[in-house]
Amino acid sequence: MVDILHRIGVEAATPEKVYEALTTVEGLAGWWTEDVKGSSGVGDTLAFRFPQGGFDMDVVDARPAERVTWRVVDGPQEWIGTTIDWRLHRADDWTIVLFAHEGWVEPVEFMHHCSTKWATFLVSLKALLETGAGSPSPRDLPISDWH
Amino acid sequence: MVDILHRIGVEAATPEKVYEALTTVEGLAGWWTEDVKGSSGVGDTLAFRFPQGGFDMDVVDARPAERVTWRVVDGPQEWIGTTIDWRLHRADDWTIVLFAHEGWVEPVEFMHHCSTKWATFLVSLKALLETGAGSPSPRDLPISDWH
Repeated sequence: MVDILHRIGVEAATPEKVYEALTTVEGLAGWWTEDVKGSSGVGDTLAFRFPQGGFDMDVVDARPAERVTWRVVDGPQEWIGTTIDWRLHRADDWTIVLFAHEGWVEPVEFMHHCSTKWATFLVSLKALLETGAGSPSPRDLPISDWH
Repeated sequence: MVDILHRIGVEAATPEKVYEALTTVEGLAGWWTEDVKGSSGVGDTLAFRFPQGGFDMDVVDARPAERVTWRVVDGPQEWIGTTIDWRLHRADDWTIVLFAHEGWVEPVEFMHHCSTKWATFLVSLKALLETGAGSPSPRDLPISDWH
């Protein structure tokens, strides 16, 4: 099993504000994809759609201002069964986000792509919280022929 | 051992042009850090410096338009002995870059940071080749309290 790992810091935002951007449809639509539906309580399902396809996630953990964990239940074959985990902590005036997309069976080329793409969406999350404007799909930053 | 993996596509650039940006001091200074010294032949050492510190890399492989591999010989403890590998291939009008920073002993928080930071430098490499202007240090995109 191999994992995608990232760390980003959001300046002058509390863990509560970052948590909100990860657990409300309005928040998620502000940095990942404008086409998001569903609910974000534990046991609920969130449906994220992009021009290239999409993902359905079951919310398996949600601890206010601390942690959010999703399990992928539908989407590209390589994503199904993987886990996306968000851990938040405070460091002075920053909220630090530790991100892990865990449980890839093989380090395929698509995993390399998703790793880079996640980083750009984390930069989008940071921008949303710091400036009020993220870059969610379909206005996301293209990084390659796979978009 | 754990690895950082990324994939980026550079549009309308040949693998030869991308290789040049990875193997000349002028190219490297255009996307990673303006403070780079040394030579890039196999067996040579490149010294990259940033306001926060730096890395010395031995060039262990360099196959024109195909592959570049560096071994970290000095820098942060967690980097020493790790390998940075660049593989290039063509896909229609794109050059695809498969990047791996391999051999981390543990998935420490600093590795999470470096993963995200590498993605932003790959976006900088892409921008350099597509538009003529990258964002090398000290003009790089800050992503957190660790810069």
